[in-house]
Amino acid sequence: MELLKKRIQEEGKILPGNIVKVDGFLNHRVDTELMEQIAEEFKKRFDTSKVTLVLTAEASGIALATICARAMGVPMVFAKKAKSDNIEGGLYQSDIFSYTYKKKVTLLVSKDWISADDKVLIVDDFMANGEAMRGLCDIVKEAGAELVGIGIAVEKGFQHGGDRIREAGINIQSLAIIDSADENGFVFRED
Amino acid sequence: MELLKKRIQEEGKILPGNIVKVDGFLNHRVDTELMEQIAEEFKKRFDTSKVTLVLTAEASGIALATICARAMGVPMVFAKKAKSDNIEGGLYQSDIFSYTYKKKVTLLVSKDWISADDKVLIVDDFMANGEAMRGLCDIVKEAGAELVGIGIAVEKGFQHGGDRIREAGINIQSLAIIDSADENGFVFRED
Repeated sequence: MELLKKRIQEEGKILPGNIVKVDGFLNHRVDTELMEQIAEEFKKRFDTSKVTLVLTAEASGIALATICARAMGVPMVFAKKAKSDNIEGGLYQSDIFSYTYKKKVTLLVSKDWISADDKVLIVDDFMANGEAMRGLCDIVKEAGAELVGIGIAVEKGFQHGGDRIREAGINIQSLAIIDSADENGFVFRED
Repeated sequence: MELLKKRIQEEGKILPGNIVKVDGFLNHRVDTELMEQIAEEFKKRFDTSKVTLVLTAEASGIALATICARAMGVPMVFAKKAKSDNIEGGLYQSDIFSYTYKKKVTLLVSKDWISADDKVLIVDDFMANGEAMRGLCDIVKEAGAELVGIGIAVEKGFQHGGDRIREAGINIQSLAIIDSADENGFVFRED
């Protein structure tokens, strides 16, 4: 998606250790108009007519997932991380490793809010190692629901989480795949 | 807002200890159409023409805040909880007590994403003790920005966080104030 690549090129920052920061429009301050444009792009790339649920993981995926769910006329469910007292029994769960927080976290979704009848589009703002996506796919499988696909705004291609998902035969659409981010700037994978 | 009260009445659950659960449409599975209707209600209750930014706290406020920001044509910023390695220097911060997690958490907003020129509408899905709101108000003040008001979907009136904010002279609009939630069901405050 050229518009998104342009925003990354113009506003993204590269920190030591190949850390990519796009927090001015994607995951701290969120450009809600851009989210709408991303949602429209996902609608072109997936058969969203059959989607019944958009699933994401807290926290930064929620903004994009909400706009996508609204554009598709379906609810949005977000997996919670770790256990809060406000979630009673009956949970689907998957343990993942968070590279952001450098520890294991557990993704939780109440069994009340995803069922075997659901056709799920997973949406996230950012993917690096793909751990959160692996956890969300586990939860969809546990629920016996159908995974329609995975829509990602920005993928760090050089960390290969997306490649593993592609090899598993899942329909994943990443709108900007960054193949390198270093002192020479951003290099994007060809569409 | 009658529609919201109706949803709470029909779908909300009351757990021991006056815990109110509205996670089927507000803060785990999110009814995105209802969020749009709530955003429209806030547009009636606040002078949103001058709002430049919608501010919330992660995680469950993000869905509603995103839809509100989109409806108002402005960006959404969410305060992060605790420190992640992806946030570099320059932060506004405020310590609050989280009753959900029973510990102190720090709300953080990068100084890059809120400025003295901003006119901020704070939005959250749920308010009980009002700690998160106190923290967000601190951050708006630290930034030297103008607080337009606070829009809350569901307020637990019997925990008095909202009353303290009203006494401080802040324009807070809660669309459903629950004055009691026990074995007799929900009682809402009159508008």
